[in-house]
Amino acid sequence: PTTKLPKVGTTIFTVMSQMAAEYKAINLSQGFPDFDGPKNLLDAVGQYIAQGANQYAPMTGVPALREEIAKKVAMLYGNTVSPETEVTVTSGATEALFAAIAAVVRRDDEVIVFDPAYDSYEPAIELNGGVAVHLQLQPPAFHINWQQLKDAITPKTRMIIINTPHNPTGSVLSAEDLEQLAELVRDTDILLLGDEVYEHIVFDGHQHHSLLSHPELYQRSFVVSSFGKTYHTTGWKVGYCVAPAALSVELRKVHQYLTFSTSTPMQLALADIMREQPSHYQALPAFYQHKRDLFNTLIAPGKFTFTAAPGTYFQLVDYSNISDMNDIDFCQWLIKEVGVAAIPVSVFCNTPPEMRLIRFCFAKGDETLKNAAARIVAI
Amino acid sequence: PTTKLPKVGTTIFTVMSQMAAEYKAINLSQGFPDFDGPKNLLDAVGQYIAQGANQYAPMTGVPALREEIAKKVAMLYGNTVSPETEVTVTSGATEALFAAIAAVVRRDDEVIVFDPAYDSYEPAIELNGGVAVHLQLQPPAFHINWQQLKDAITPKTRMIIINTPHNPTGSVLSAEDLEQLAELVRDTDILLLGDEVYEHIVFDGHQHHSLLSHPELYQRSFVVSSFGKTYHTTGWKVGYCVAPAALSVELRKVHQYLTFSTSTPMQLALADIMREQPSHYQALPAFYQHKRDLFNTLIAPGKFTFTAAPGTYFQLVDYSNISDMNDIDFCQWLIKEVGVAAIPVSVFCNTPPEMRLIRFCFAKGDETLKNAAARIVAI
Ligand SMILES: CSCCC(=O)C(=O)O
Ligand SMILES: CSCCC(=O)C(=O)O
Repeated sequence: PTTKLPKVGTTIFTVMSQMAAEYKAINLSQGFPDFDGPKNLLDAVGQYIAQGANQYAPMTGVPALREEIAKKVAMLYGNTVSPETEVTVTSGATEALFAAIAAVVRRDDEVIVFDPAYDSYEPAIELNGGVAVHLQLQPPAFHINWQQLKDAITPKTRMIIINTPHNPTGSVLSAEDLEQLAELVRDTDILLLGDEVYEHIVFDGHQHHSLLSHPELYQRSFVVSSFGKTYHTTGWKVGYCVAPAALSVELRKVHQYLTFSTSTPMQLALADIMREQPSHYQALPAFYQHKRDLFNTLIAPGKFTFTAAPGTYFQLVDYSNISDMNDIDFCQWLIKEVGVAAIPVSVFCNTPPEMRLIRFCFAKGDETLKNAAARIVAI
Repeated sequence: PTTKLPKVGTTIFTVMSQMAAEYKAINLSQGFPDFDGPKNLLDAVGQYIAQGANQYAPMTGVPALREEIAKKVAMLYGNTVSPETEVTVTSGATEALFAAIAAVVRRDDEVIVFDPAYDSYEPAIELNGGVAVHLQLQPPAFHINWQQLKDAITPKTRMIIINTPHNPTGSVLSAEDLEQLAELVRDTDILLLGDEVYEHIVFDGHQHHSLLSHPELYQRSFVVSSFGKTYHTTGWKVGYCVAPAALSVELRKVHQYLTFSTSTPMQLALADIMREQPSHYQALPAFYQHKRDLFNTLIAPGKFTFTAAPGTYFQLVDYSNISDMNDIDFCQWLIKEVGVAAIPVSVFCNTPPEMRLIRFCFAKGDETLKNAAARIVAI
């Protein structure tokens, strides 16, 4: 039968998590924590449900949550956004990414993505009639080559997707990078889509440089984040998009017909914890740096080579010292023979990368990380 | 600024609910109950959250919930569907509708909709490059004119959207209608999208005739339903789509990049109540018929004219005896001067309807209905 997405199979995250379950491997593939968020957050959902907060939330999100998001954006990024007209709560960051693309990408528009690129970008672009233009982030640092970007811009360039901290490589944009970007897009109509779902997970004193922090860039940006990543609740599917009013109008036109609104009791509970406990996300860098360092220290004696990730809860490793299989075969071997699941990086690339790379998720309890590392160093 | 959806403003449901709140009117506009679902359902969400069910659900839905959906489909519609390959849980029926359209509607494809048509259909069709072809349901019964449909089918017809029980008119398809439909699409490649979110809400001994109950039709159908409507939890945003495996593959390719997955604890709680309490949805026809009859009896002495709705929790009424305003102005007047909010029907129509119609939602506590009716008969 004909298909609109001939290149698309089942997302790698589902494939690998299913295979991990089948072989009872330790699952460091799909990115989710194996621990819970703050207890008062968890309890609050049941309380709001018991109080009857079970009908449609406002289409744009519960006002209290939009206000807390705006307060955070002001505090962290010095940007005064209107909760009324610039903040939209979505059913996960995935919905926000799709809605932003659907809102502005027209037939034959070009959207520039940097490989390895999160796997939802290209299908979302294609479903909306656009064309993904792939640039490569170069190992080992996986920074953007600004000259390459400049050369890739054409009159058809509608949007550039900027993912920082970057999944799967962990790289982060610097303040200087934002200046380079501003210079490139100045005097163009190019829009930006900032995938910043790991905004609170940066290490070694790195700062997250958000598109929200750069007034000139923000004027043309959709900036997406995720409560799932920040509050260890990936299964609640609550995210959001901050964008200038004119762009938010277009985003909302799509959002209202994609999902209309997002879980009311969960939004209310998230509003409370944002208001009452900003210390939660302030503690995330140290919390996850401990895990990154634990995992990296434990696997260092093994055969993988790697540079510690500056951000995200993912660690990229090179397996050339172990095997010359391709990364998909290697991940299958790793699950079956070693009992650890990872994500192959080539599935995020239009052109296969030169290095042999896989991604481990270290958002796991210390015991899980120790057990996985023990298996890994035994290879 | 350019927009991809020039005809689209904010959805009427948001506009009317906001105006109702502003003027403290009784809100019979947007369709949602003002009462809660079963207490054990509500309690179960908090329990699953406390037990740690807070990470991503499987992309296609929690297995236990897909199984209960398949069991219900077998029991009610005599159709043995596979929970593995034919059932997909979505973030509300709205997502399911969008995903089905995005999965199969290609550039310049025609999709036939019947006016008055739910407001998400046409923007979803347009965003995916298709063209909505509008046919009219004729008052007072709002049945499909099969000859008209036959004449509207062209080689470009990709899909027909069949909404039964029908929002906003309350009309329901008969078994004979399904036969007519089968005859029309036989020997074509036309797909069907069944919006059956009110499947459990039919009155006066009417049966719901689902596309699921007709094997020949099912082979080309996406059938969408909603836990929000059935369990009085519109704010949880859990729906689903049942479709043959080949269509479900395409639906899931889109779903995985629209929202990826849907709230884990809510899916688990819904699986439990479906398994433990099928009496809940079995009782819905009587439950809502009481409300329809109460409301209709109370407003009968007033100036609105109407025929009792055969299904859904909406009652259409004609206001020609009261005013010759257009229905949008009339709804604003009704909010401001009478203190009751309704939905104008013209917003669901490409060609303005001949009658002056508005829609009341009677999914409200009896006291609310009595208070609203008292204001209505005082007009
Ligand atoms: C939506 S499932 C994938 C989760 C994730 O962001 C990742 O593993 O990269
Ligand atoms: C998604 S809000 C609209 C709810 C509804 O289905 C209706 O009022 O018709």
